[in-house]
Amino acid sequence: MTTYIFHQRCNLAFHASINPGAMNVHNIRVINEQQLRACITLDSDIVDVVETAFVALDSGGIVMPPILSMPLTDMNGEVDIKTAYIPGFDGFAIKMSTGFFDNQSRGLPSLGGLMVVFSATTGQVDAVLLDNGYLTDVRTAAAGAVAARHLAPAKVKAATVIGSGLQARIQIRAAHLVRELKQVFVWGRNRETAVTCAADIALDLGCQAEAVTDPAEAIAKSQLVITTTPSQQPVFKTEWLHPGLHITAMGSDTDHKNEIEAEVFAQADLIVCDRVSQCEVLGELRSARQAGFFVNTTPPELGAIIRGVHCGRSSNEDITVCDLTGTGAQDTAIATVALKRARDSGVGTIIET
Amino acid sequence: MTTYIFHQRCNLAFHASINPGAMNVHNIRVINEQQLRACITLDSDIVDVVETAFVALDSGGIVMPPILSMPLTDMNGEVDIKTAYIPGFDGFAIKMSTGFFDNQSRGLPSLGGLMVVFSATTGQVDAVLLDNGYLTDVRTAAAGAVAARHLAPAKVKAATVIGSGLQARIQIRAAHLVRELKQVFVWGRNRETAVTCAADIALDLGCQAEAVTDPAEAIAKSQLVITTTPSQQPVFKTEWLHPGLHITAMGSDTDHKNEIEAEVFAQADLIVCDRVSQCEVLGELRSARQAGFFVNTTPPELGAIIRGVHCGRSSNEDITVCDLTGTGAQDTAIATVALKRARDSGVGTIIET
Repeated sequence: MTTYIFHQRCNLAFHASINPGAMNVHNIRVINEQQLRACITLDSDIVDVVETAFVALDSGGIVMPPILSMPLTDMNGEVDIKTAYIPGFDGFAIKMSTGFFDNQSRGLPSLGGLMVVFSATTGQVDAVLLDNGYLTDVRTAAAGAVAARHLAPAKVKAATVIGSGLQARIQIRAAHLVRELKQVFVWGRNRETAVTCAADIALDLGCQAEAVTDPAEAIAKSQLVITTTPSQQPVFKTEWLHPGLHITAMGSDTDHKNEIEAEVFAQADLIVCDRVSQCEVLGELRSARQAGFFVNTTPPELGAIIRGVHCGRSSNEDITVCDLTGTGAQDTAIATVALKRARDSGVGTIIET
Repeated sequence: MTTYIFHQRCNLAFHASINPGAMNVHNIRVINEQQLRACITLDSDIVDVVETAFVALDSGGIVMPPILSMPLTDMNGEVDIKTAYIPGFDGFAIKMSTGFFDNQSRGLPSLGGLMVVFSATTGQVDAVLLDNGYLTDVRTAAAGAVAARHLAPAKVKAATVIGSGLQARIQIRAAHLVRELKQVFVWGRNRETAVTCAADIALDLGCQAEAVTDPAEAIAKSQLVITTTPSQQPVFKTEWLHPGLHITAMGSDTDHKNEIEAEVFAQADLIVCDRVSQCEVLGELRSARQAGFFVNTTPPELGAIIRGVHCGRSSNEDITVCDLTGTGAQDTAIATVALKRARDSGVGTIIET
């Protein structure tokens, strides 16, 4: 039991004097990226974990404040902070994500960050997850799987992914966990990276995957489209819609990104948001409303579909869209599981404080 | 150089494939409370550091988003997140503060939290400061010293502190760094804790200190009053004002706390805020406006007084008030200094991630 001394000149344990019996000595687990990668992989279990977050979002009692966004124009950077308290979970996470877009010239990744896990009972810091954004990558892809599980047609033979970065790869892997894909089409601005991406996917899934130059043709053959770009202009055109198509748009997470033509909102049979309050400022719902669609209409949330509160897709012929912006609830869900697994396997560095 | 593998099934270094050359291996310093106490004490240097934060707040270029507040009613708790980017500083801090008010029955402190320090150039996590609120205690007291330095009369022989907790003690210590106090009066709801507090202060400062039962009498003899309570009803009455008095109100930091009678705002010669945008929702300015004072008047900020942009106290006879709510800029200032000192003396645990 340590008695803290406030000041070397002074022998008074000030903290003790205002918090009787409150010597705040406890252990904090610090887990680095490599250790987290050993604990968490994108698999069916993680899809289920992220699904519980969406169920919780629709079940009441959750506390999820608006995202704190700090634009750092001087540094061509930005910081986002997300958090959510979910009743019944042991802990809650606060996630800090950074994007510093001049980093590539320094040989450093643009994106980074970490999560801190607090005890939901005492508020004490339980763990620091130094994941450099890894857990966000996984929970974002897992949300795509949850959307596909509940909104895509029962059979998806072919899928098209727009974009050719990390999320293009892992969104397809995630979709494959819930719908067995036979064929994948990749369309990206840069032909070369699209080819590499398709090759990676073919190797990963053991299915046919090819980079395409004509998205219309690929999408006509697909039952699932996933948009994964940071585009500020629509990359998905209304004319590509056809019966039995589900689209998951996961790229837009700021008030200036937009992947889906607004008129898609008028033509689809069902629009679903991960969180309406976020999508209307950061997602496709924002651009659709700006163009005059869905101005007085509130789409259902993914959690309501999962819980059966909203009926969801009514037939294999419906056209459905899911607008994902990423929620603090997903972060709390994946972080608490990562911490549980790390504890169970004794992974991480213990710091006494 | 570590190559990360995304998934055990799959041999692709996905992170590498979207961030060429971006193996994000770097060292993070984790510093616990005891180590931070060895690096940072409440002294003149720290008062100067916190003063730079107020100067920066008034100098443009700073980015300080509104506080993210998460009330956790189920748990009788709350979480606050503060941050600020200050141009010219090596890093910026994100501070997470917790208050879980059933903790005392568990033998745990109610307040806790930590700070994360990011590189202002690259956004990478530089350090995790597991301070359990210690740095907040120090920077809050230091802000009181900055206020007294620039707003109290040139000579302060006697000071009254209202409240008898940790901040009562360290606000007085901080004031003593900028004005040599001969006598201190302590007034608190609980006579016994006020007596203990006065004894602690006498020992700490080596000056006369006594608990009083009549605040009016004590304040009549004082040139400085510091209010340090979580009160929701005013603890300072307008009738106690007299020429040559400075009041620092540091207790209110939520939209339901209030320490100073609203009419003080009408009678004082000068009202100063640490940050107007915070004080009008969390501080004394909020309650004053609610009562109809200062509705169309914007007080100057402490930084403007320090920089001489606003003239401040015009004579030793003026009555002045400083409304402190606590800013993310103070957190960034103290956290970056704590990290520099820890690095210089090799303190902390290095985690590679």
